[in-house]
Amino acid sequence: MAGMTLEDIYSLGEKTLMDNGCDAANAAAVARTMTAAERDGSQSHGLFRLPAYVKGLREGNANGSADPTVEQIAPSVLKVHGQEGFASLALERAISPLADLAGQQGIAMCGLTRIRHFAALWPEVEALAERGLVGFAVTAAIPYVAPAGGREALFGTNPMAFAWPRADGGVLAFDQAASVIARGDVMIHARDGVPVPEGTGLDKDGNPTTDGQAILDGGVQLAFGGYKGSAIAMMIELMAGAMIGEVFSFEAKKTAVPGCPFNGGEFLMAIDPTKTAGADFLAHGEELLGKIEDMEGARLPGARRHANRAKGGPAEVSDKILEAIAAL
Amino acid sequence: MAGMTLEDIYSLGEKTLMDNGCDAANAAAVARTMTAAERDGSQSHGLFRLPAYVKGLREGNANGSADPTVEQIAPSVLKVHGQEGFASLALERAISPLADLAGQQGIAMCGLTRIRHFAALWPEVEALAERGLVGFAVTAAIPYVAPAGGREALFGTNPMAFAWPRADGGVLAFDQAASVIARGDVMIHARDGVPVPEGTGLDKDGNPTTDGQAILDGGVQLAFGGYKGSAIAMMIELMAGAMIGEVFSFEAKKTAVPGCPFNGGEFLMAIDPTKTAGADFLAHGEELLGKIEDMEGARLPGARRHANRAKGGPAEVSDKILEAIAAL
Repeated sequence: MAGMTLEDIYSLGEKTLMDNGCDAANAAAVARTMTAAERDGSQSHGLFRLPAYVKGLREGNANGSADPTVEQIAPSVLKVHGQEGFASLALERAISPLADLAGQQGIAMCGLTRIRHFAALWPEVEALAERGLVGFAVTAAIPYVAPAGGREALFGTNPMAFAWPRADGGVLAFDQAASVIARGDVMIHARDGVPVPEGTGLDKDGNPTTDGQAILDGGVQLAFGGYKGSAIAMMIELMAGAMIGEVFSFEAKKTAVPGCPFNGGEFLMAIDPTKTAGADFLAHGEELLGKIEDMEGARLPGARRHANRAKGGPAEVSDKILEAIAAL
Repeated sequence: MAGMTLEDIYSLGEKTLMDNGCDAANAAAVARTMTAAERDGSQSHGLFRLPAYVKGLREGNANGSADPTVEQIAPSVLKVHGQEGFASLALERAISPLADLAGQQGIAMCGLTRIRHFAALWPEVEALAERGLVGFAVTAAIPYVAPAGGREALFGTNPMAFAWPRADGGVLAFDQAASVIARGDVMIHARDGVPVPEGTGLDKDGNPTTDGQAILDGGVQLAFGGYKGSAIAMMIELMAGAMIGEVFSFEAKKTAVPGCPFNGGEFLMAIDPTKTAGADFLAHGEELLGKIEDMEGARLPGARRHANRAKGGPAEVSDKILEAIAAL
């Protein structure tokens, strides 16, 4: 492991992307996304992702010069035309207009289309909460997850993220896959020969298994919480797909380039509680959140990420990742 | 069991409520809610609930003459002032204005406040989907569920409901508690001495148990899917509580009257996909839903309810419930 400052991580990401055909605006936005992940101790969304971003550029899967535009398509609805670029720049351009619209209308939404998304969703919902808004986001991806009772992959690992503003200016946020564990975690368990948790998936014959490799070899992942998580995965497909005029996971797969960021859409929503509740909503929210913080054994979602963020020190990046990046 | 037509169920509900102090408008609305549940084979939300509605009226917990009003508090936000009445009439009055507003704005929300809710959430989201909209609803109630890792009840069983319009004019809907099983199911398991599923709850000492009675005797229920379901239960508290200026479950408990409908709020949202996606969203949605319907072992959420509804025949109501109602 190598200790790197966040500045070094950012610079390495930005330079590598620009060296591989990304323009300055897109390279900076993706580098910010990866740096924020490293800052929060979320290595799986940090520089680890850089080789795939570069692969996306090289294979023509992603447009490194995308110039995303924001269009208002209804009084409370924005649409971002991503121009097949990485999601980071599209999202950065969406946040302020969406926040402004929510401030005017009380509630507003944005459908992000024609993007290549490959990062966590907490950056965008946290950006909304930092502006005093409630943020909600969902996206679908490549089909890895079977509907409850079924044996065929149809849903993506389909994350849902939510953020709420804190009275101290911070934010509460969660960002969780609809699958029991992330795809990458199945791969890591398989590589290391460690069993995955029960309920994670089925083998190619439809039998429950804790062998990650059996899930990868023609099996399927399952949604968390059985049929309830499956219903949520379905809702996410509909919201991030047909509801915003974008593809479902099973459709995205048809044009996906293996190993590259995913094509598809994202549904992002913002609500201004000063319009829907009044100014005391912040103090009121703290009464619930304080009870969770104070309860033995419980913790607020995202607490670990935010604790890492507060440290702000150098991040540990694996030598193997740095070697892979140097080769780009 | 007695076979009753839906008309008889409606009349019995309406008359019993009016005999116990409900005005005609509220009695009709609550009777419609109970009848719809019986029609769908959801007995636990049918006439089974009538004694508690009556108790609410008799103990002054609910206002049988509430005249709920709908106020537009921001361009895309409605607020319903429930006047401490049952949720049914408040919801019926909210649906058309909310649907109209979503049709104009693309997305709109409604915070229902000062209501006594005691029914499923699928009627309101289905009513939106019947108008061609995407519906989403959440509500919080009495604290029965501990946050993941904790041992103290803080969250309600907090249902989330979602509905999507079908191309044939029907609707897809799910409506699910954030707890592993409903409160009433824990009670039924305890009464019958049948173990509850693993993960359902903890006993008073914080130990996992499959003894429903141990959960009821000072224990707590748990959220479905571990920390992920717990995060969703928390989101629901925030959305149905502080975000719309209403109480959290732990606050509702302070003024709750045992055995009566719950006081609290509900967050209801509508999105018009013809504004956010275009007219082909309906056909597009069918491509996903058809894959679930066609997949061996899988089924669409709510399919059983809708199959019961299609029968439209007499419903079976238990003699015990009818005796309890006759005594009112």
